[in-house]
Amino acid sequence: MTLQTLTIVGVGLIGGSIGLAAKARGLARHVIGVGRNQVSLDEARRQGAIDEAYVDVAAGVPRADIVVFCTPVDKIAGQVLQAAPHCKPGALLTDAGSTKQRIVQDVDKGLPGHVAFVGGHPLAGSEKKGPAFADASLFVSRWTILTPTPRTRPEALERTRSFWQALGSRVRVMDPEAHDRALALTSHVPHLLASALAGILPADFSDLTASGFRDTTRIAAGDPALWTAIFVHNRAAVLQALRAVQERLEEYHRALEGEDTQAIQNLLAQAKKVRDALGS
Amino acid sequence: MTLQTLTIVGVGLIGGSIGLAAKARGLARHVIGVGRNQVSLDEARRQGAIDEAYVDVAAGVPRADIVVFCTPVDKIAGQVLQAAPHCKPGALLTDAGSTKQRIVQDVDKGLPGHVAFVGGHPLAGSEKKGPAFADASLFVSRWTILTPTPRTRPEALERTRSFWQALGSRVRVMDPEAHDRALALTSHVPHLLASALAGILPADFSDLTASGFRDTTRIAAGDPALWTAIFVHNRAAVLQALRAVQERLEEYHRALEGEDTQAIQNLLAQAKKVRDALGS
Repeated sequence: MTLQTLTIVGVGLIGGSIGLAAKARGLARHVIGVGRNQVSLDEARRQGAIDEAYVDVAAGVPRADIVVFCTPVDKIAGQVLQAAPHCKPGALLTDAGSTKQRIVQDVDKGLPGHVAFVGGHPLAGSEKKGPAFADASLFVSRWTILTPTPRTRPEALERTRSFWQALGSRVRVMDPEAHDRALALTSHVPHLLASALAGILPADFSDLTASGFRDTTRIAAGDPALWTAIFVHNRAAVLQALRAVQERLEEYHRALEGEDTQAIQNLLAQAKKVRDALGS
Repeated sequence: MTLQTLTIVGVGLIGGSIGLAAKARGLARHVIGVGRNQVSLDEARRQGAIDEAYVDVAAGVPRADIVVFCTPVDKIAGQVLQAAPHCKPGALLTDAGSTKQRIVQDVDKGLPGHVAFVGGHPLAGSEKKGPAFADASLFVSRWTILTPTPRTRPEALERTRSFWQALGSRVRVMDPEAHDRALALTSHVPHLLASALAGILPADFSDLTASGFRDTTRIAAGDPALWTAIFVHNRAAVLQALRAVQERLEEYHRALEGEDTQAIQNLLAQAKKVRDALGS
């Protein structure tokens, strides 16, 4: 796949990394960045992630063969619908949002017929923010989940698959609702746990934290506004996954209160088995 | 400080690292390892962490100027009391256990007067296990907490401080009960959270985990028996810290259920502030 023009809406860590990867891998001859923040746009251009920058989405998309939206989850559907009328016929739109069901539903309701949209989510990222942390190899060997709907045409899905594969990613296709249910447990609730733990640390305990605390809480450094949008977008699934963790913690609490040593060790051994299987 | 002979009881990750550091820094001319597991002893000798090995603690301690116990927390006090009668007058005994109150209390009850014991806890380690993962620089710039009791003589405390400093560590003195209360929150409860989260991951979600899940659950790979002993030893403080996390999670649950976006964002922002202050 070689594109004449790729437009990236939102040039932060993910958008900037897409630009760098597209350049490094010869995926796009020309990369346009769209963003509200002129400082980020300038930084992305300095890094070589984009060639040209616009603050207005309508100005940045008309030449694009593919437009990828890397903005907060509560902004994506609106921006897709705002950009679509300005896109050329046959343009493909995709996104990198961490939630999928609401985005694909909202887009399906209003997308004009001359373009296609396929929801995407690369399972890559960091607690870091901004194009300064962009990395051309961010997607290499990581999964990108694509979430077609009954309205998605097979050729649009295949073209989206080729796009993410060309960035180095492995691609898996899932139902949007199944994606959101899984990610609630593998990404959104871990963020809540990390934040809950970091949030109750008294200031004078800082020196008494070692690598275990730092690893466990690392993602709590993520952007609060971005994550609030994710939690609200995926509210039902996050509540369900959070309840499952709370119940497991209550099991630990009961076992420890009752000094049921064997129950504690069994719970820990089962968790170790799962964690060992994931690798480092 | 230069010792003629250092004895390390328990030559796993921590004990092996003490041996390597003592050799690399010229702290001890001769290092003796004591352990139940001949394979670990052989591995520690191959690594250069120890010069000589015994399976019997009574045989390994008579020549030692300092004996450091790096065994599971539920074994340390018994081994200290078992070793002490075989130690020479003036020998200093210390340990690397993750809990302190029960260990120092139990030792105080039975320690003969010709030796001294000062409880210690280096805040360094890993989910890895065994002398194969030992590292001569494990303690560099890490804190070691020393927990003297009213029976501890000042010169024994100062000698213990010099010992851990000679291994590269920074040293802080704390009350044993305060140590256990802090570590319940900074180390023991993080382990429970990591294990609770890893434990509820369905097998078919493995591919859908990214660095956030892996970081948050990394310590769940720790040894279940070692950690069970820590939880039981520090039961009251762990229960209290666990309840504090559970209450904070319930706050998140209520805020999300009530779609109180501002409350969620405030909780996340406060947690980010704490986590940012810790550094990477």
